[in-house]
Amino acid sequence: MTEIPTFALASNKLKSERTIVNVGDVQIGGDKPVIIAGPCSIENRNQLLTTARAVKVAGADIIRGGAYKPRTSPYDFQGLGVEGLRLLSDARAETGLPIVSEVMDARDVDTAEAHLDMLQVGARNMQNFSLLKRLAECSKPVLLKRGPSATIKEWLLAAEYLLVGGNESVVLCERGIRTFETEMRNTLDLVAVARVLELSHLPIIVDPSHATGRRSLVPSASRAAIAIGSHGLIIEVHPHPEQALSDGPQSLNLREFSSLMESLNLRNMSHVTSSVNDRHEILSTV
Amino acid sequence: MTEIPTFALASNKLKSERTIVNVGDVQIGGDKPVIIAGPCSIENRNQLLTTARAVKVAGADIIRGGAYKPRTSPYDFQGLGVEGLRLLSDARAETGLPIVSEVMDARDVDTAEAHLDMLQVGARNMQNFSLLKRLAECSKPVLLKRGPSATIKEWLLAAEYLLVGGNESVVLCERGIRTFETEMRNTLDLVAVARVLELSHLPIIVDPSHATGRRSLVPSASRAAIAIGSHGLIIEVHPHPEQALSDGPQSLNLREFSSLMESLNLRNMSHVTSSVNDRHEILSTV
Amino acid sequence: MTEIPTFALASNKLKSERTIVNVGDVQIGGDKPVIIAGPCSIENRNQLLTTARAVKVAGADIIRGGAYKPRTSPYDFQGLGVEGLRLLSDARAETGLPIVSEVMDARDVDTAEAHLDMLQVGARNMQNFSLLKRLAECSKPVLLKRGPSATIKEWLLAAEYLLVGGNESVVLCERGIRTFETEMRNTLDLVAVARVLELSHLPIIVDPSHATGRRSLVPSASRAAIAIGSHGLIIEVHPHPEQALSDGPQSLNLREFSSLMESLNLRNMSHVTSSVNDRHEILSTV
Amino acid sequence: MTEIPTFALASNKLKSERTIVNVGDVQIGGDKPVIIAGPCSIENRNQLLTTARAVKVAGADIIRGGAYKPRTSPYDFQGLGVEGLRLLSDARAETGLPIVSEVMDARDVDTAEAHLDMLQVGARNMQNFSLLKRLAECSKPVLLKRGPSATIKEWLLAAEYLLVGGNESVVLCERGIRTFETEMRNTLDLVAVARVLELSHLPIIVDPSHATGRRSLVPSASRAAIAIGSHGLIIEVHPHPEQALSDGPQSLNLREFSSLMESLNLRNMSHVTSSVNDRHEILSTV
Repeated sequence: MTEIPTFALASNKLKSERTIVNVGDVQIGGDKPVIIAGPCSIENRNQLLTTARAVKVAGADIIRGGAYKPRTSPYDFQGLGVEGLRLLSDARAETGLPIVSEVMDARDVDTAEAHLDMLQVGARNMQNFSLLKRLAECSKPVLLKRGPSATIKEWLLAAEYLLVGGNESVVLCERGIRTFETEMRNTLDLVAVARVLELSHLPIIVDPSHATGRRSLVPSASRAAIAIGSHGLIIEVHPHPEQALSDGPQSLNLREFSSLMESLNLRNMSHVTSSVNDRHEILSTV
Repeated sequence: MTEIPTFALASNKLKSERTIVNVGDVQIGGDKPVIIAGPCSIENRNQLLTTARAVKVAGADIIRGGAYKPRTSPYDFQGLGVEGLRLLSDARAETGLPIVSEVMDARDVDTAEAHLDMLQVGARNMQNFSLLKRLAECSKPVLLKRGPSATIKEWLLAAEYLLVGGNESVVLCERGIRTFETEMRNTLDLVAVARVLELSHLPIIVDPSHATGRRSLVPSASRAAIAIGSHGLIIEVHPHPEQALSDGPQSLNLREFSSLMESLNLRNMSHVTSSVNDRHEILSTV
Repeated sequence: MTEIPTFALASNKLKSERTIVNVGDVQIGGDKPVIIAGPCSIENRNQLLTTARAVKVAGADIIRGGAYKPRTSPYDFQGLGVEGLRLLSDARAETGLPIVSEVMDARDVDTAEAHLDMLQVGARNMQNFSLLKRLAECSKPVLLKRGPSATIKEWLLAAEYLLVGGNESVVLCERGIRTFETEMRNTLDLVAVARVLELSHLPIIVDPSHATGRRSLVPSASRAAIAIGSHGLIIEVHPHPEQALSDGPQSLNLREFSSLMESLNLRNMSHVTSSVNDRHEILSTV
Repeated sequence: MTEIPTFALASNKLKSERTIVNVGDVQIGGDKPVIIAGPCSIENRNQLLTTARAVKVAGADIIRGGAYKPRTSPYDFQGLGVEGLRLLSDARAETGLPIVSEVMDARDVDTAEAHLDMLQVGARNMQNFSLLKRLAECSKPVLLKRGPSATIKEWLLAAEYLLVGGNESVVLCERGIRTFETEMRNTLDLVAVARVLELSHLPIIVDPSHATGRRSLVPSASRAAIAIGSHGLIIEVHPHPEQALSDGPQSLNLREFSSLMESLNLRNMSHVTSSVNDRHEILSTV
């Protein structure tokens, strides 16, 4: 008899087929990795639309941009709020790409739901259970970032709050954990992606920008994420990273993002799929 | 010239006298350590009132009890909510002691403020900035727990959100951080208490229950906390820990709490005060 | 003017060309990733030679096997010692592949140097400075594992002990760091590989076996390691992992190792090389 | 039936009476906390003897001083070696106090054993099993520091190497673990002291100097250590910390050490003893 894990609905023991989450008409969880790109913070119309157009041309599938910004210090730029959501809607209108942004407060979910194609739960809110319960009733998919000190099981239990409350469109996002190592902003736990693929049917993507905190490491972290089976990437892009109001050091400029997209060569992903099959074959023989 | 730290209002560089926070008529931050005690979760009237009476007799200053419960799993007991706040009010009416409880959602602050003498921000919500901003406008003091992976500076910046928003009655609470060591539930960072006393004018207390996760370690952790200069303790007490709906293994029973209070011998705290003076003297000569 | 880092000899600021380390006639640090494989502990002649023959057929470049075993408990199997080194020599004679094994004590270096083609410093000995100083005078290359709580800079400073003492043939090995996450044995810090490639001219490989502690995760971790630019892998293989005297749960059996080698498809590594070039191009434009 | 832990000889399940370790004529593990003090590195005769005389006058029981120095960088001062041991012997001759120093290499144990009253295993060598096995045959007691990323169980298993090899005079030393928090040099895990007292019959002391890395925090950390039941302290003292060749920022000067000793008031330790009894009473009723 199969033991039921505590994250019963997130587990693949009760649901063996992989979940595909639809964000607008983009599918996350299928064979082709999905690329989400855009600025950390939405600063103004020009910054956002310039970025949105460029990442679309480069091949991005979804636009990201921060409207409500969780900032360690109250003296840092706190985001444009609803105005940011409106600008994101304009970016969607112009590019035709779906949009995702973080929501930090259950009181903002109605507004965010009206504007966005996917709502993000930030790492520091992964165990904000009030927010999770509200998002469980939301009609839009949720991008659930892993908390900086959350175990894989706690993360899947946070997803369970969404699933048990009725929202089955959950995408997980590994963005690095906090460890003793300070050379990078966080420690990207890429093996956690492979482990989640063993434990859960939910799709999972990787945020190489927050994980590394260093622009120069984003391309190699992205390649490794795809190689390990991530269903996508969420990457910070800014027209002028050196002037960004937040996270400049980890943001790619438009040309760098375009180069990265070329090097990822996502059209030919058959080797990854076969790799996953290899793994399952290996598992089944052990 | 003195450098202003990023947590300008929480720092003692701009305000050198220590802050005393009044919770009802109890003062936190003065010479006498304050003891907060009560059950992890409020389960029913009898459980709460039995505990409240007993901890009062044993010498506790403030009653604690969880009404809104942040639980890792959605399948665990989620707390009685508003009904729990009402029961806490009854406990205050009967014992005359002020009451504190956690609030997890900005939408619940109005109700909580009406019932409670102090509102607690739980460890997992330390960087729930929406909640912090709402509590900054609250008329009641706030007990701000350190996040399990928060640095001291991030913790003081979370306090800064409260201070800059207008609430000057902030009490910090060290409750253990998450490390590689799993023998205890968390790693109690007692030196952080001493460091906070160097950096900030805010009072700080210690939670030995969550820090250790083991009943048998609560008394020694409590003694060490007082010795290092903590302004108080918050301790989980339950009439029948083995039947508790949450945190039983770390809860003291009524007799154990009474024994602990006797061993702490808080009436004679002059040695601690002189110790703090020694430290300042040492500092001033370096 | 370029600032000289504290790890002057390990840094690529003073030596820009990448170091190639020759282990027998195998080169580590060039375009083709090098695969080191073999049992965690050498248990007997048959176990070692069976494994050695099989990993050679599967395409491994170097044979590994533990003779001196660092074990957390004194009651665990402590290794065959010198007899293990002799069996490894036999494996080299039969397969023609070079051999590597860990040495734990400066007093054993003479003997180990006589038998082995490369000497390994284990993770727990990364800051065993007596051992490092002795190995600095050794004529054979050194495989230097990262300590479980060592920062990248401490690791490069450990390499500096070898370099400044005269041994320029140093290969670094990322094998996972210790964090709060217990789902895997360690947390594989793959981005550290990319960061070391930015900071140092030394070759670096990855140990997916110790990093994950789970056989099922070794293949995906291996693929990600190659994708991020690792110069090779060191993988634990055992004819019958379920009977292994150490590290059975993370060891591949002979067939699994063969499958992994096929899926890695190391003959065609041009995409990785071009990826590294892309990264450098991106860096040079920032 | 009582389960035998893996650290059978270190456990108090098989040996219930507490071990007292004799260092010269000083007893570690009894009612009175033992104070070990002296410079991080022995720099020259005058520095060592000045310190030794002063800490004796202030009430220290044992002199410490580093002769073989484990240094992260090969370019840092590496210690005086045997000459340092000779100077320590002179300090003993002049003060009459026993002496302790670190040994890093099994090859140095003979010499160290001839000079010292206790041999220290440094944190980075806690799992240097070759060294442990050699020290197991040593006639002198061993001070075993906890590794910066060692669990309590791994630490007790390192002690087990000494006990099973025949050396029953083992003193444990908590010196802080490595965590994400960088405000202090390490995170002092004081509750680990209380937990070790529950698990083992071995005496345990605390190193507040390495744990905090900040002179100003040493007095409060020392008081908390004594309060939680530590059998002693090992404190770095230097006549002129600002000129020290190592660890200056965490060393007390002679006057600061004298003030600390007065504030600790170790002559009257009855409250600690009764506290430990309280704890055992509480435990026995649970």
